[in-house]
Amino acid sequence: MERAQIEARILEMVTKAKAAARTIGAMSGSMKNQLLLEVAESLVDQQPWIISENAKDLAEAEKKGLTSAMLNRLQLNEKVIGEMVQGLREVAALEDPVGEVSEMRRRPSGITVGRMRVPLGVICMIYESRPNVTIDSAALCLKAGNAVILRGGSEAIRSNLALAKVLHEVLAKHQINPAIVQVLDFTDREGIDCLLQQEAYIDLVIPRGGEGLIRAVTEKSRIPVLKHYKGVCHAFVDVDADFDMAIQIAINAKVQRPSACNALEGLLVHREIAAEFLPKVAHALKKQDVRLLGCHRSCLLSDEIEPATESDWGREFLDLTLAVKVVADLDEAMDYIAHYGSKHTEIIITGSYAHSQRFLREVDASAVMINASTRFNDGGQFGLGAEIGISTTKLHAYGPMGLKELTTKKFIVYGAGETRA
Amino acid sequence: MERAQIEARILEMVTKAKAAARTIGAMSGSMKNQLLLEVAESLVDQQPWIISENAKDLAEAEKKGLTSAMLNRLQLNEKVIGEMVQGLREVAALEDPVGEVSEMRRRPSGITVGRMRVPLGVICMIYESRPNVTIDSAALCLKAGNAVILRGGSEAIRSNLALAKVLHEVLAKHQINPAIVQVLDFTDREGIDCLLQQEAYIDLVIPRGGEGLIRAVTEKSRIPVLKHYKGVCHAFVDVDADFDMAIQIAINAKVQRPSACNALEGLLVHREIAAEFLPKVAHALKKQDVRLLGCHRSCLLSDEIEPATESDWGREFLDLTLAVKVVADLDEAMDYIAHYGSKHTEIIITGSYAHSQRFLREVDASAVMINASTRFNDGGQFGLGAEIGISTTKLHAYGPMGLKELTTKKFIVYGAGETRA
Repeated sequence: MERAQIEARILEMVTKAKAAARTIGAMSGSMKNQLLLEVAESLVDQQPWIISENAKDLAEAEKKGLTSAMLNRLQLNEKVIGEMVQGLREVAALEDPVGEVSEMRRRPSGITVGRMRVPLGVICMIYESRPNVTIDSAALCLKAGNAVILRGGSEAIRSNLALAKVLHEVLAKHQINPAIVQVLDFTDREGIDCLLQQEAYIDLVIPRGGEGLIRAVTEKSRIPVLKHYKGVCHAFVDVDADFDMAIQIAINAKVQRPSACNALEGLLVHREIAAEFLPKVAHALKKQDVRLLGCHRSCLLSDEIEPATESDWGREFLDLTLAVKVVADLDEAMDYIAHYGSKHTEIIITGSYAHSQRFLREVDASAVMINASTRFNDGGQFGLGAEIGISTTKLHAYGPMGLKELTTKKFIVYGAGETRA
Repeated sequence: MERAQIEARILEMVTKAKAAARTIGAMSGSMKNQLLLEVAESLVDQQPWIISENAKDLAEAEKKGLTSAMLNRLQLNEKVIGEMVQGLREVAALEDPVGEVSEMRRRPSGITVGRMRVPLGVICMIYESRPNVTIDSAALCLKAGNAVILRGGSEAIRSNLALAKVLHEVLAKHQINPAIVQVLDFTDREGIDCLLQQEAYIDLVIPRGGEGLIRAVTEKSRIPVLKHYKGVCHAFVDVDADFDMAIQIAINAKVQRPSACNALEGLLVHREIAAEFLPKVAHALKKQDVRLLGCHRSCLLSDEIEPATESDWGREFLDLTLAVKVVADLDEAMDYIAHYGSKHTEIIITGSYAHSQRFLREVDASAVMINASTRFNDGGQFGLGAEIGISTTKLHAYGPMGLKELTTKKFIVYGAGETRA
């Protein structure tokens, strides 16, 4: 398409989305839930057709030589569709965040002031190959009262449009403005660039995907972006840590799902226990096929640790590799984390009350934990319900983002004719 | 200065600020309060010197031909310094927001999860000619545990550096890292451009000034920006409004301080009461020297209303001018506000419970009020204490921004060795 044509198409979409935001913003919770449940039913009914549309994407992707990991992410089978259906039902079951009023207080002037939770307005999701994000994200955005514009990966276009069709059929049945959910039906890259300039219409952009996508979106966007680049999570094993606890947590944090952003990437060990603890933890991790890359001192203490290079500090391995470093004390551990951490998840294993409190207060990360696995940094584990991502930037949301993070609060005032003195 | 030199200077400042953020972030509330009170005392002691430094800025500004309004904003006299001193004492008296823990809950896994309020980190303020912003902003940022970089107007450079010197003398007395407050000591415009690229070091940018400054900062910034462009506030006078109340509120909202962003700029009147109400409110506003620009229908109903042009709808007059429009009903009023409003403050004057609730829920603005003057949209009036501005964008803060809006919340977890199943 010509640039001018793309701009016209995007302008039409965002204009419609802004108008539709008023519709979905004022919709009752029960109506929103009914829509989500009907979409879930429709996905089940239309599963064969969705899978056949997805097969076209898969065939073309195969021709283009995508890796099997990429094809795997692109695939919509019964299991993936079942998870989407389950996700829709879970989101329907969550409490509606919109309209919650808090902090109502009478002021000396006589007015009563409080805050009401309201939708953000229009949210734009930009994501890569997984087509299930289309349904998962749409469900959360709509439940939070927002209109949503979805731009998935170009290799998933038929799958995404098939899922959009299922959504739109449910909306049409109830004569609801279809622009509350819009999926870009063209794959020109300029479509993204153009979307990211629409700050008069779009309130928030959420990129989901690799660091490359997220950096590109952030650089181009004139609209606020909620993001996390990477998760470089550390555990500090303090001088009086329970060794068994520390080993169990290190194994769980590193091994349970090494490709997750909340997996452990760095182990810091207090030097006074290093001689005793390091060989034990190294041996236990080796049994789980974890490769250990350590500082000079740790290599001296265990044969199972290979020498690390400078680039291994602060590195997101995303596989069964772990950086290991001996540190002098809590302060050196916190300095290391401040330097190499990614503000995702940082944990301390300690028996010291004073150290636990200092670590909790002074370490800057979206989740700071005492004596628990990094793997708990997750919307479901934290009790937020479904999550739309984990923010490692501090504005608006820091940590897992659930329904509430897709809303904001406005001030409301009840008066009786008061004027300002 | 050369571009490279500017970049080196900025990099040095932001690096120092990031390190200093850990110092101020961990400082006790009583220490922060002591510093604020000592700065207040020092301002009183050094008032003659501050005024003499300010006089040099004023002399140069006069030579450059600045308007008297601009000179007035630039001036530091006893009154303005007194207000800064009072402001410091008020901020010292506010509760420390840092460290507040909320929402602690035991999860099925055994971990206890909650949220702890923490500083944002490094805040950059970019402002125009009023040098008092240097002290007012520094006080709020520091109290919220943030390091701050201040870039004021070039015409106020000596005044701003004098105020910075007072601050730094107090910090030096206590051997506290001076980089918790830094004022740019050069006025090259490239300094701002370079600051706005430092997303690895600066967490938030707050521009304070006219729409031009705010738009320029927003366009260039790679860092999140909290801002409001303008305040185009409306009052809708409903069919069953109390006329006297509506007239008193209209006068207060328009006349009390017409240059404020929460002043009234548009009056919408229900058509069924227009014939009776409009001549009355027009007459009352005329007596206060308000110029009225109205739609065709309102001009027919009152001789005191002149015809408006299309550009008067949604215009921020900032003087004693008011746009007046007759609307069919609540829905037309809300459509008008959705189209012409600036998401700042919108009010309804009504006797209808149902209409008050629809207006409150459906109107999208940082403050939505029933039967009260727009002028109440203010941090002090809402009970937030001092405010650093009013946000009309919805991410992170919507409405007046007090101390809490200069912080964020991280997740904290208390465990006893839990691992994820």
